[in-house]
Amino acid sequence: MKFSIITLVALFFLLLLHVDVHAQTSSKASWVWYPGDLDIWVSNKMQNRRTERGSFLPPFWKMDSHYVLVEFHKDFDLGSAEEVKLYVEGQYNVKIDGQALSGYPKNIIVPAGKHKLSLKVYGQDKVPAIFVQGKTVVSDASWLSTYEDKEWIDASGKASDKSGTTFVSVGTWNLTDPLLPPSQFKLATKAVDAVKTDKTEKGFVADFGKETFGFLKLHGLKGKGRLHVYYGESREEALSAEKCETLDLLELDLHGKQDSTIALSKAFRYVNCQPEGNVSLEKVSMLYEYAPVKEKGSFRCSDDQINKIYDVANYTFHLNTREFFIDGIKRDRWVWSGDAYQSYLMNYYSFNESPIVKRTLLAQRGKDPVTAHINTIMDYSFYWFLGIYDYYQYSGDQKFVQDVYPRMKSLMDYVLGRRNKEGLLEWMPGDWIFIDWADKLSKDGEVSFEQILFCRSLETMALCADMAKDRASAANYRELAIDLKAKIFKYYWDESKHALVHSRIEGKPTDQVTRYANMFGIFFDYFSAAQKQEVKQNVLMNDRINKITTPYMRFYELEALCAMGEQSYVLQEMKAYWGGMLELGATSFWEEYNPDKKGTEHLAMYGRPFGKSLCHAWGASPIYLLGKYYLGVKPLKPGYETYVVEPVLGGLEWMEGKVPTPSGEITLYCSKKEIRIQSDEGTGTLRFKSNSKPLAKGAEIKEIGKRTYELKIEKGIPYVVSYTK
Amino acid sequence: MKFSIITLVALFFLLLLHVDVHAQTSSKASWVWYPGDLDIWVSNKMQNRRTERGSFLPPFWKMDSHYVLVEFHKDFDLGSAEEVKLYVEGQYNVKIDGQALSGYPKNIIVPAGKHKLSLKVYGQDKVPAIFVQGKTVVSDASWLSTYEDKEWIDASGKASDKSGTTFVSVGTWNLTDPLLPPSQFKLATKAVDAVKTDKTEKGFVADFGKETFGFLKLHGLKGKGRLHVYYGESREEALSAEKCETLDLLELDLHGKQDSTIALSKAFRYVNCQPEGNVSLEKVSMLYEYAPVKEKGSFRCSDDQINKIYDVANYTFHLNTREFFIDGIKRDRWVWSGDAYQSYLMNYYSFNESPIVKRTLLAQRGKDPVTAHINTIMDYSFYWFLGIYDYYQYSGDQKFVQDVYPRMKSLMDYVLGRRNKEGLLEWMPGDWIFIDWADKLSKDGEVSFEQILFCRSLETMALCADMAKDRASAANYRELAIDLKAKIFKYYWDESKHALVHSRIEGKPTDQVTRYANMFGIFFDYFSAAQKQEVKQNVLMNDRINKITTPYMRFYELEALCAMGEQSYVLQEMKAYWGGMLELGATSFWEEYNPDKKGTEHLAMYGRPFGKSLCHAWGASPIYLLGKYYLGVKPLKPGYETYVVEPVLGGLEWMEGKVPTPSGEITLYCSKKEIRIQSDEGTGTLRFKSNSKPLAKGAEIKEIGKRTYELKIEKGIPYVVSYTK
Repeated sequence: MKFSIITLVALFFLLLLHVDVHAQTSSKASWVWYPGDLDIWVSNKMQNRRTERGSFLPPFWKMDSHYVLVEFHKDFDLGSAEEVKLYVEGQYNVKIDGQALSGYPKNIIVPAGKHKLSLKVYGQDKVPAIFVQGKTVVSDASWLSTYEDKEWIDASGKASDKSGTTFVSVGTWNLTDPLLPPSQFKLATKAVDAVKTDKTEKGFVADFGKETFGFLKLHGLKGKGRLHVYYGESREEALSAEKCETLDLLELDLHGKQDSTIALSKAFRYVNCQPEGNVSLEKVSMLYEYAPVKEKGSFRCSDDQINKIYDVANYTFHLNTREFFIDGIKRDRWVWSGDAYQSYLMNYYSFNESPIVKRTLLAQRGKDPVTAHINTIMDYSFYWFLGIYDYYQYSGDQKFVQDVYPRMKSLMDYVLGRRNKEGLLEWMPGDWIFIDWADKLSKDGEVSFEQILFCRSLETMALCADMAKDRASAANYRELAIDLKAKIFKYYWDESKHALVHSRIEGKPTDQVTRYANMFGIFFDYFSAAQKQEVKQNVLMNDRINKITTPYMRFYELEALCAMGEQSYVLQEMKAYWGGMLELGATSFWEEYNPDKKGTEHLAMYGRPFGKSLCHAWGASPIYLLGKYYLGVKPLKPGYETYVVEPVLGGLEWMEGKVPTPSGEITLYCSKKEIRIQSDEGTGTLRFKSNSKPLAKGAEIKEIGKRTYELKIEKGIPYVVSYTK
Repeated sequence: MKFSIITLVALFFLLLLHVDVHAQTSSKASWVWYPGDLDIWVSNKMQNRRTERGSFLPPFWKMDSHYVLVEFHKDFDLGSAEEVKLYVEGQYNVKIDGQALSGYPKNIIVPAGKHKLSLKVYGQDKVPAIFVQGKTVVSDASWLSTYEDKEWIDASGKASDKSGTTFVSVGTWNLTDPLLPPSQFKLATKAVDAVKTDKTEKGFVADFGKETFGFLKLHGLKGKGRLHVYYGESREEALSAEKCETLDLLELDLHGKQDSTIALSKAFRYVNCQPEGNVSLEKVSMLYEYAPVKEKGSFRCSDDQINKIYDVANYTFHLNTREFFIDGIKRDRWVWSGDAYQSYLMNYYSFNESPIVKRTLLAQRGKDPVTAHINTIMDYSFYWFLGIYDYYQYSGDQKFVQDVYPRMKSLMDYVLGRRNKEGLLEWMPGDWIFIDWADKLSKDGEVSFEQILFCRSLETMALCADMAKDRASAANYRELAIDLKAKIFKYYWDESKHALVHSRIEGKPTDQVTRYANMFGIFFDYFSAAQKQEVKQNVLMNDRINKITTPYMRFYELEALCAMGEQSYVLQEMKAYWGGMLELGATSFWEEYNPDKKGTEHLAMYGRPFGKSLCHAWGASPIYLLGKYYLGVKPLKPGYETYVVEPVLGGLEWMEGKVPTPSGEITLYCSKKEIRIQSDEGTGTLRFKSNSKPLAKGAEIKEIGKRTYELKIEKGIPYVVSYTK
């Protein structure tokens, strides 16, 4: 091989150019703070926005807070002196090489050469945060921070370097506007009109046409007296002044006519405005409030009802994708861990917004010491562990796992400290064993479902401990998991019932079989192939086993069936269950749906006539099922370094869609005769069955079993496969 | 015995009256919050007020924060319905028997009968706090609070009672004005004029006559340009624009003439105002800022220099008694634990302000998890434990010990986790081993001084664990203390040196003897009578052992000598050392005083010409020495249930004074011929020596040894004893 000098020089400049471009990219300044702190601060704000019939209804678990005093620094080596602008939230000082500058400087000069630039910030009300903007001296993820900079001086005024201070990379959400500091972070809004308004005796009921979320705007408001605003996800709820879940009561004394926007955003489709006295208003509109996420995933198929289900699921999920992944938009708007765990999975097949996943995980976990399970729920602690590993699988973001590992460890220490003498977990004061909303679900004794989640969490800890190079702990977690798994089968597997039983009470297995542990046993791959078949027949497809009535647990039930190749059955279940809600007029999917109920019974829950959320994140699971088990796309190595695509039509004529990857997407079309696929990154394996010998122009298809074929997918190359379903 | 009916009826009404009076007393409402939270919040605020030459200089340890979401409640049983006013800091809800009232009510009716009143408050910027004012329904120390009210509802809407929530008594500082919420807490001020003003070329230097603290007020300020204000504890400092420790720089553009007060209070005696441009001002005055504490202790004697020392010590201590007991008023104003420990002891002989002791202890400790020693200093963690037990001894406040015990335990867990394989403590990354400001003081290896404080802390833990009914831990701490004490003597006691050596390095005792461990060994009573004498001769009164140059360690050195009856020697030392500062013009006592230094050398420290604090709490120890070892008053059982008074003139002709007790005082006069004593509470023992048989009218004096006598002191009775010194 031979290059001319000119080529080499050109290459050299190309390399230089590359470096330069890279340097410019890294010179983009962001607001930065102690990692996890803004996540906690914003979640405190959001979770304390819940009201119930006008009363403030805050969470009932410990809420943590940010570190109020934080030091930030970075070492620079500058070719020439640089003017640097400083923006800070909080009271601060600035040091260059440890020497404080006077006052609260906003413009500084960092001299040429090697220098350490430090800012130390105190903020009680807001998260201490900095934005540093020079040419190359900028605040970004490469800065370090600490809440304990043990800088000591001795009697002679010398600083000691034996501080033992731990520095960690700063947190950042890519907030790049120096004039919009972190405390001002908010979602986007846009103006939306009601689609229909019906007059009532004194006021009116406005219908926004579908479930929505935002700030109600009152137009042409005037007079003196009261204005009652009753919100409804259903018309019935808005009309029920006595029982609607959310409301506003305004005491007015206006001299002219004005437009006014209500400060607290709310979920509704219908708004019932009832003025008293001589108060009047012309109409209402709203500022729709939303997270400006990109729709990266998609799904379309030959079945219009499934397409409608996908769209409504997607809308439901978007409404619940906010500052964080929340449970539902009407009531709690809290970062419930079990709910969010499902949102993470849906997210990997739709928005693929890693920042919201990380933010939600950090907000849920809060700070040490651990004094209760996440959201006080035992199962929810476990979903939190699982969520972190899934995130790593889909994103390849090892750094986050390493960063969060200390908080994983202290939560697992808490869990391990609550084992009984059998090494199993059962209820202790302070625990809520949730599992699912279901009547007569026993939480007594050692519930098998909790042990199975516990076991998976220990496996997750072992994997993450390895990543954090905590080898001794990894070995320990691995051993604990093996031991626990053995116990699960020893204590709960019932040969005659062909299933895990629900629980053990006072050392004796109970008689009851429920779906929970059994369906997780399938997709956790804890069962042998034979056991899976037994569980499928005797539990999942057995009508005598109590039915699941929440989309929450239907998620896992259908996932277990899909994992066993029952896509055709699941498609019909989806059409019946989610299609059932659509037939009842749902514009978003619900917290609970029991097809046996009638009329307004569907609106009730928690003993309240409109207690049920009609827009609940966990209602959106078709997004995940269709992406993972029909399009059949899933990562094999973290971040789609390798992945598999196993399309299954499950009775559809054709389907097509996109699945986002960390920095691109996988596009797929699949009919009974043709598969088209292209991917932006990683190396994939397309695996499919064909009744004829399949063909792909310019690519080699391998036969790997009876009528089963594989094709290697290289990034950037479109593949077209002819085959016969 | 026989009562007439009338007498019985009268007695009945008296009883009723008593109950009523009691009810009215307990009906005084206070602001309340989660215990310890306001202590932390205010200390964050105070400790982040430090500046150095105009730069913000915050602490370098972890600052904790309040719980942002707190539930408060109390059960009431009312004879009749009551109107109750509510004042709240934060966003809140109100529940009666678990039912939320709408909105943010300010006036509620609590119905007759048994009812639970709850308020739940969210406050990110300020400590959640409530003030509840009805006739009998009032917020006070009897309310309970929690940061985790795990109130669960099941699917049917029923609340579970298996919450496992821990409720603790609220915190309160006796803030009784509903319109002055906790976040507005501040010290008192009063206007004070400068005593003298000297013109300089462009400005002037004002002298306030003595060390003081407050907000500088600028009179008749006008013009456009800059005004430099340089503060000085000494005239030299105020005149040094380049090196003074604190300053203000004002950029002015005033149209008329005005008076203006500087927002940040500072310590100074001299203020040097230097205007630039056409700025001018007529004069300065100040708002003296102070804690409005009562002077409960006193001391007067036949020696005028000692009286002056007492007065200046008292003033020094008052200046450093602020929101908390701080180290010094010019620089840090931080809650340094070693410094505060001495302040607690001085406080018991002067202001006896229990609230400030508790507040300082809570602020120092912060919250879990423990990630470093208190103020990062190993010795300072130990003083914290010791301070709690001393507080109990002097106050009898067992409740505080029980309340703080969990935080004692977690700090001790942290300490125990840092023992080396010998079970001893030596430097580890993150530790500062302070001991004292002294040149060439080795901190290497296992320093004996740290082990002695560690041992005393373990003994303290055993006592407090007993009080908290944590029997198993008490036994464990006791055993650890016994074991450690044995090791101290085995490893450090040197028979040939008649003292404990300074340290052990790599398993070998070092040769050096220092005063530190040896003087603590005396008043901790770790030494035998013979060892005490050996140590006294070979260490304390041995000029070849490195001298102590801080009042901080002189405190303990002189205490050790007093504990051995060397009051006459100590009196001369006090006159020389504190008297030495007075002769140099001190108006408050210093951080360090080395009589060998000259002129402005006395102002320097930390390598800075005016680095030394000239008003340091630890300079005020004569208050404690004179009260405890001359007046000789000390509690034997907690809270002066029993106490001893052993007056020692130490060369004085006469002395008199008062020592505060929890709810009164002990008044004492003692000359060479007469002792007069009276006490408001407890049972005391006056113990004294007499060369003649002493006499006390109406009281029996017991001879308990050779020329040694005792008299029992009953409360409320004045005793006059004639004797011969």
